[in-house]
Amino acid sequence: MSITFLHSDQGMLGSNWTSAIADELESIELTIRSVINSSVEVASDLSGRLLASGGKRIRPSLLTLSALACGECDRERMTYLAAATELVHMASLVHDDVIDETRERRGSATAGAQFGNKISVLGGDYLLSKAFHLLCVHGNPDILKSLSATAVVMVESEILQASGEGDLSLWESEYWRIIRGKTADFMASCCECGAMLADADVNQCQAMREYGLQLGLAFQITDDVLDIAGNSELTGKETGADLINGKFTLPVLMALRDADGDGSLRKTLSKGHISACEAEKITAIIIESGALETANSAAADCVEAAIKQLSIFPQSIYTDALKSLAEFVISRNG
Amino acid sequence: MSITFLHSDQGMLGSNWTSAIADELESIELTIRSVINSSVEVASDLSGRLLASGGKRIRPSLLTLSALACGECDRERMTYLAAATELVHMASLVHDDVIDETRERRGSATAGAQFGNKISVLGGDYLLSKAFHLLCVHGNPDILKSLSATAVVMVESEILQASGEGDLSLWESEYWRIIRGKTADFMASCCECGAMLADADVNQCQAMREYGLQLGLAFQITDDVLDIAGNSELTGKETGADLINGKFTLPVLMALRDADGDGSLRKTLSKGHISACEAEKITAIIIESGALETANSAAADCVEAAIKQLSIFPQSIYTDALKSLAEFVISRNG
Repeated sequence: MSITFLHSDQGMLGSNWTSAIADELESIELTIRSVINSSVEVASDLSGRLLASGGKRIRPSLLTLSALACGECDRERMTYLAAATELVHMASLVHDDVIDETRERRGSATAGAQFGNKISVLGGDYLLSKAFHLLCVHGNPDILKSLSATAVVMVESEILQASGEGDLSLWESEYWRIIRGKTADFMASCCECGAMLADADVNQCQAMREYGLQLGLAFQITDDVLDIAGNSELTGKETGADLINGKFTLPVLMALRDADGDGSLRKTLSKGHISACEAEKITAIIIESGALETANSAAADCVEAAIKQLSIFPQSIYTDALKSLAEFVISRNG
Repeated sequence: MSITFLHSDQGMLGSNWTSAIADELESIELTIRSVINSSVEVASDLSGRLLASGGKRIRPSLLTLSALACGECDRERMTYLAAATELVHMASLVHDDVIDETRERRGSATAGAQFGNKISVLGGDYLLSKAFHLLCVHGNPDILKSLSATAVVMVESEILQASGEGDLSLWESEYWRIIRGKTADFMASCCECGAMLADADVNQCQAMREYGLQLGLAFQITDDVLDIAGNSELTGKETGADLINGKFTLPVLMALRDADGDGSLRKTLSKGHISACEAEKITAIIIESGALETANSAAADCVEAAIKQLSIFPQSIYTDALKSLAEFVISRNG
């Protein structure tokens, strides 16, 4: 499956999954906007800028579509909980940017670059506290347990990733644990909580969780491929940034496995620190090796596994949208 | 009331309030230790070091004493919730240290100095996520609403404080809002949640909340006095750090009001940036002006107001301990 082909139908797939819940997404957007408002001007200002910088709102979409695919539920509650998942995601982006000292994301200056790290750390905390408050007011015990357990795993995985920068052997042994923990488990929890909100039975909750998990793995693998092969104008991130930051992702690991007969790639990566010039050379080796296709194929397998989980639900515009969303995840170019 | 006198009986007062709940404090300590354990070594290591560096465990004590002063309650739940309040406090210290670029606290290197800011931001997030999970599993809706609303106010106040560094007029208009939001409201919420846990009636919950609020104000004013007059070996913080960081606290504001006839102090403070040498001169002016006594007297008034709230509860070792704790808050030297 060529990357070019996958990119070409992003628009169509994108519109497919959002159109099923266009009204809901608008309510979620309004809710986020109203919730982040603060009498402390800097807090509102920082959050407002983050919100305006966009994003695909995948986590709120997952919660909403999963709920509606399972039946009816309290719409107001669904909107608040969906908004909370986006706030958690936004908070993690703000703290990630402080951590990675990222100066630009999605074509705009990051919070750290605009407000300084001090306000950014607190800005992330503000979004987290708002999310926590929404969850406490609108969640039920099962939903709170699921999302709060996931929050712990997310942070643990971020710590594992941060402590393992430049450490090739850690990435070789922990890649799947890291991407599952930092991305997939949260998407799984969004889907599970959607199902719980609609009072779905245990099998349905479990199937939605598995759908979200597989979709999340595919999402992160695709992110990792885009870091190497993506167009930085579309991804909003510098190409090769992961490599330079010592994050050795699936395409790198696949190239090591399949195209490093003389061990020179392993030798370069094992040094820990990768220069921009070395990153360019490594990128060429990875592309040449076919590792991007191998990684894309792994992501496609995850999407297939995700879609398979949907078979137990009655077909509806919501299950169709969940299918489109899964396909979008590996077809996006940013 | 001289500062020397207040310091001299710290030991006795300290032992008074902890002895009423010695077993409970031990259980809380063990719970925190077990909760912060993680399969990700760096997460356990960071949290373990923070825990070992000590602290007065004032927030868990407030929750525990407030609960027991109101009657019986689920002890296990009380222990978990008390542990969660300390985790929130620890998380805020870790993020504060990243924000202030503090290298040392309580005589030990801060997390930022030991692990770098990257791991410290995530370390704070880890403690917060653990606290959130404990609250979600062991809290009830009222407790969750109280603590999560307080968390929002705490962060807003920290943002207000960070955005107002060096801005004298902001501190003049917002001092009480900042110290209430960053310190007192959380202590108020700990007390209120203790009362809620013991199924206290609305009046009792309200009285405990007010007790905690007044105690928290006294606590923060005393902190602000210690920043100027304290012994850095006992406080664990560099003397005059607030001034140098552009935090203009009550002693400064009192000196401005009472001892700045020629406006020279206002002129120096209005520049925004205060050098270590200027901080020393300002400290001398403040001490000379009697502003520390005025601030101490304001703190003593808050303690009196706090203790007054206890009159509606039947006297017990727990109400006695709450009284001792309030007295300790203004008598401590670190």
